[in-house]
Amino acid sequence: MKLGIIGLGKMGLNLAINAAGKGHEIIAYDICEDRMLEAKKEKIEIANSIQNLVKRLGNENRVVWLMVPAGKAVDDTIDGLISIFKSGDTIIDGGNSFYKDSMRRYKKLKALNIDFLDAGVSGGIEGARQGVCTMVGGDRDVFERVEKLFKDISVEGGYLYAGKSGSGHFTKMVHNGIEYGMMQAIGEGFEILDKSEFDIDNEKIARLWDNGSVIRGWLMELMADAFSKDEKLDKIEGVAYSSGEGLWTAQTALELKVPAPVITDSVIMRYRSEQEESFSAKVIAALRNEFGGHKVKTKD
Amino acid sequence: MKLGIIGLGKMGLNLAINAAGKGHEIIAYDICEDRMLEAKKEKIEIANSIQNLVKRLGNENRVVWLMVPAGKAVDDTIDGLISIFKSGDTIIDGGNSFYKDSMRRYKKLKALNIDFLDAGVSGGIEGARQGVCTMVGGDRDVFERVEKLFKDISVEGGYLYAGKSGSGHFTKMVHNGIEYGMMQAIGEGFEILDKSEFDIDNEKIARLWDNGSVIRGWLMELMADAFSKDEKLDKIEGVAYSSGEGLWTAQTALELKVPAPVITDSVIMRYRSEQEESFSAKVIAALRNEFGGHKVKTKD
Repeated sequence: MKLGIIGLGKMGLNLAINAAGKGHEIIAYDICEDRMLEAKKEKIEIANSIQNLVKRLGNENRVVWLMVPAGKAVDDTIDGLISIFKSGDTIIDGGNSFYKDSMRRYKKLKALNIDFLDAGVSGGIEGARQGVCTMVGGDRDVFERVEKLFKDISVEGGYLYAGKSGSGHFTKMVHNGIEYGMMQAIGEGFEILDKSEFDIDNEKIARLWDNGSVIRGWLMELMADAFSKDEKLDKIEGVAYSSGEGLWTAQTALELKVPAPVITDSVIMRYRSEQEESFSAKVIAALRNEFGGHKVKTKD
Repeated sequence: MKLGIIGLGKMGLNLAINAAGKGHEIIAYDICEDRMLEAKKEKIEIANSIQNLVKRLGNENRVVWLMVPAGKAVDDTIDGLISIFKSGDTIIDGGNSFYKDSMRRYKKLKALNIDFLDAGVSGGIEGARQGVCTMVGGDRDVFERVEKLFKDISVEGGYLYAGKSGSGHFTKMVHNGIEYGMMQAIGEGFEILDKSEFDIDNEKIARLWDNGSVIRGWLMELMADAFSKDEKLDKIEGVAYSSGEGLWTAQTALELKVPAPVITDSVIMRYRSEQEESFSAKVIAALRNEFGGHKVKTKD
């Protein structure tokens, strides 16, 4: 099918290549000139504006896939499309939008007879290129109209109609929350190995654990790959950024009164990793000094 | 090779079947008559005592694999073997012993010229039967003498000489700690799905996440299997027991000053699951009532 893709970041460009490889006719656009050049190199057809992109998709039943950063960029792009789109056209948001935003956008577009699907996409860059895992929310009939696209870009058994509007990004959010918890658990485990009296070969143990152990899986495979390049991870700083879904999962858990300490702690530990020192530790040090005269570590 | 196996629980019996299938000559023993009958049915040769088992292994270089519950049972069995064993014989502890116990036993046996390996074994019952993941600690030359056994019972690439005495059970302990954290993260994620406004098909989403997503792996595969038998897990109680390794990992992390909130919380959440109500919640309710007159829920 003819498909417009807006947003050619790491995920967007690789998805475009993936879909093009499956015979879909892709016309892509990115606000950033560099990304467009990158796409051209990969033989992806480029539009010079959103207007131009929509025009080249034909006159009706046009489908545009958004792969832009969550938040304002999604609203702005949708607003840009609304002015050109008409009844029967479809917007798929394949980014990591907050599910409540997706539900709001669905309602807004519904009133204009424009169809909207929220598609959570997992699998990393490698997946985007070779086959993702996709969970889709929205009207079932709209999903079915573009089902072949989801099938084509996903691995075997790797796409699902999750339910009503919002459920695609909701399940993707929870997936990422689980991912945060799993990654923090792996991180803690390897730090315990590292600080122990044993001389453990990180790469070998990660590779071993990916073969036949209970915790085998893609994350352990990636861990072995990472250690194979940098045995003690000496080349990178211990700073783990985050992009929203972990926080949203923790917030949603609180809102739903679900005790989710592991997912929440894994978000907290990422924030801690971004601090050089914590003010809370200063407070504790000051209090210990006040009541017990305990030594504080002073600045120079 | 000739191998004595003591302990025919779920893991021990299946390991015996696994090793026998690879051509090893197994003679097994369990303190419990029922387990011996079970083993007989599987055509495993049975000894009627530990003495008898050792006798049937020949006169020297005898190897006995222990698969008994961690703690006193291991010490008692080793004491039983010491009285018959002589220099050059080998004990492999394949159970989930605490690594410091294994280091103590290694030293004790070393003084008697009896070799001792601590072997952490992962893969569950299915793995025990078809191929495990094994991490081995102890003297390298002793490991090499029985390496073929480890190779035979493990999946391809699924065994490793981890290092000096204790490192086999230490790495297995940390493996289980990571497993606790990963499982708690998965549990929290599915509870968030369950409590949400969306009507998510647990089995389908677990199966989906095992195909191409970042969190794909054996645990997600097992999750899909579990939901396929019991879609909402209505048939089981929300009580998650534990058998030691999670606690030991959390304790070790504290001892080594490694911040491991996720692994620790996953142990705490298991303990909470065993309580019908918590005394700490009573304390909070009583205090809220005292200072603010807030409503308490009274018994009957």
